[in-house]
Amino acid sequence: MKSDDVSFGIDRRTLVSGLALLPAISGTLLSTSAQAQTTSDGLASWNDGRAKQAILDFVWATTAQGSPKFVPPEDRIATFDQDGTLWVEHPIYSQVVYCLDRVPAVVEQDPKLKDVEPFKTVLTGNREAIAKLSLHDLEKILFATLTGMSVDDFEAEAKKWLTSAKDGRWKRPYTELTYQPMLEVMQYLRGNGFKTYIVTGGGQDFVRVYSQQIYGIPPEQVVGTAAGTKYGYRKDGTPFLTKEPKLLLNDNDAGKPEGIHLMIGRRPHAAFGNSTGDREMLEYTGAGDGARLMMLVLHDDAKREYAYGPAQGLPDTKVGTFTQELFDEAKKAGWTVISMKSDWKRIFKFEQNT
Amino acid sequence: MKSDDVSFGIDRRTLVSGLALLPAISGTLLSTSAQAQTTSDGLASWNDGRAKQAILDFVWATTAQGSPKFVPPEDRIATFDQDGTLWVEHPIYSQVVYCLDRVPAVVEQDPKLKDVEPFKTVLTGNREAIAKLSLHDLEKILFATLTGMSVDDFEAEAKKWLTSAKDGRWKRPYTELTYQPMLEVMQYLRGNGFKTYIVTGGGQDFVRVYSQQIYGIPPEQVVGTAAGTKYGYRKDGTPFLTKEPKLLLNDNDAGKPEGIHLMIGRRPHAAFGNSTGDREMLEYTGAGDGARLMMLVLHDDAKREYAYGPAQGLPDTKVGTFTQELFDEAKKAGWTVISMKSDWKRIFKFEQNT
Repeated sequence: MKSDDVSFGIDRRTLVSGLALLPAISGTLLSTSAQAQTTSDGLASWNDGRAKQAILDFVWATTAQGSPKFVPPEDRIATFDQDGTLWVEHPIYSQVVYCLDRVPAVVEQDPKLKDVEPFKTVLTGNREAIAKLSLHDLEKILFATLTGMSVDDFEAEAKKWLTSAKDGRWKRPYTELTYQPMLEVMQYLRGNGFKTYIVTGGGQDFVRVYSQQIYGIPPEQVVGTAAGTKYGYRKDGTPFLTKEPKLLLNDNDAGKPEGIHLMIGRRPHAAFGNSTGDREMLEYTGAGDGARLMMLVLHDDAKREYAYGPAQGLPDTKVGTFTQELFDEAKKAGWTVISMKSDWKRIFKFEQNT
Repeated sequence: MKSDDVSFGIDRRTLVSGLALLPAISGTLLSTSAQAQTTSDGLASWNDGRAKQAILDFVWATTAQGSPKFVPPEDRIATFDQDGTLWVEHPIYSQVVYCLDRVPAVVEQDPKLKDVEPFKTVLTGNREAIAKLSLHDLEKILFATLTGMSVDDFEAEAKKWLTSAKDGRWKRPYTELTYQPMLEVMQYLRGNGFKTYIVTGGGQDFVRVYSQQIYGIPPEQVVGTAAGTKYGYRKDGTPFLTKEPKLLLNDNDAGKPEGIHLMIGRRPHAAFGNSTGDREMLEYTGAGDGARLMMLVLHDDAKREYAYGPAQGLPDTKVGTFTQELFDEAKKAGWTVISMKSDWKRIFKFEQNT
């Protein structure tokens, strides 16, 4: 793919220089150029339009030899929020489902919890009551279900869960509910020398379990909400790490640029999100000089996925809040809003292209 | 270099299989093999011996096609301590010098500090008195000199300091006091598909300023002692990060495997250190299955560098404590001790090979 992209870059540059001299026929030439792009850029699930063009323009500006905004390959960093940006987050984050599913095992180990809230509610299996649990309740469950596990046990358990658990609507493993157009963008950026990172409010250890397999992103390129670990020794002297209930990084909102500084150490050139939790990451990315790409996924496709977030009058929900205020900031700052409905030919790999 | 290494790997494997059939002439063949190694492995500053052989054996075992201990390229992680392992740490860590050098500027901003210890002592310039400051004093100076700076200002200042500051003995910039044999090992490992990381007790942001330039290691592959940052906005609305006096990761001792889990998310296959602060990192690395390489640099060359650390009766100092206990653990666990005196042909690039 890389060599195709490079040759496309050169073709386009040559073309653009030519156009400057021949303004009268630019319309015709540009449409030929757009056709060439569709076959060579790998963004097959994207409709032509402002969003796709923003990606193509950014990659060209940062990678074409001679471009005034050329970025050396070693500086090419792109960051992606996960929930709602790379895969389905509605009606509930899959990691929350994972934690809820672990509650019976936790209660078995500590039986007195079965009469304590919020564990009591979770054990009833009453979906409506569970959906009403507060963020604080969920945090309580999160720490109770993860704390004290060895890092290795956690990885094995989460892996096992991921192969068996299924989403309620599509009846498929969560790992199949990734957005095909976003997988294509990540692949396209990597093919052009970008190092792709996930920067998620979700648990860093959780996302690392499957990031390589489903996104092609290795564990060390996942920045997420992270708790501490504790080094110790088993009875036979073997060292191991245990998960601790100490929050090191809350990788949401301002925590995203802070986490990026901690884990990557430099400012991204491109950042993708879908909610107010990604606002600061996009602002931080946009504050760098040269070419920058900031994009927000808008969930406006009730038929193929979901439509939610108060922006543009969509219904408000607990997850992925895309407020009207964020929409306005995007417009003002020149960020590109991706309409799932209009910009994406298909959303999931298992769909046929429409 | 990569293709050379691969062909070397195949040659050596073929040779080794052949040797099993021809034990009588193995001496002759092995010495031919060793000669071939010297030209193709890039370890030009290493004397032949147990340490060099341990590196070659490890790389062969983990990268040769068909090796029972083959490690897929994406899993090849190698971690290096910095101070005393990659560059000179004696008689004082260069980052401490950096912080001491910043004291006058800090006192200028907050003049009442000039009568407060330990700043008062630092301002006298009395080297003996400064050398006697406690770790707690140094921490106080560290936080005072770094806290409240923007991340960008810190980077610019540290960069500037590094170009002007010089070591007392060699009268050269600290960045020239890297160990040439270790640079060769890092290069050799990278040439064989390993991702090299620095895992240092030193400040993460400090080491990231020069890691690419002097070690070929990008900022995101530096794990170090890290304080938090705070996201905020300048008066014109531009977002920026400020250094905070909140310790997130003390990357020493047990903090090294904990930091590796936080920042890399998987166990290294090779780890290099030189002091008790690296013990847990080497233990953690060694506890993985398959081929693992654990090495400790012993400072036993008073003439070309320094001789210190109580191991083998060398003088004890404040920095880089290589205790007899660590030496014994290394022996028991099968870690390889690198003697700077015997294993290294030259220590610095600016030396002639001896």
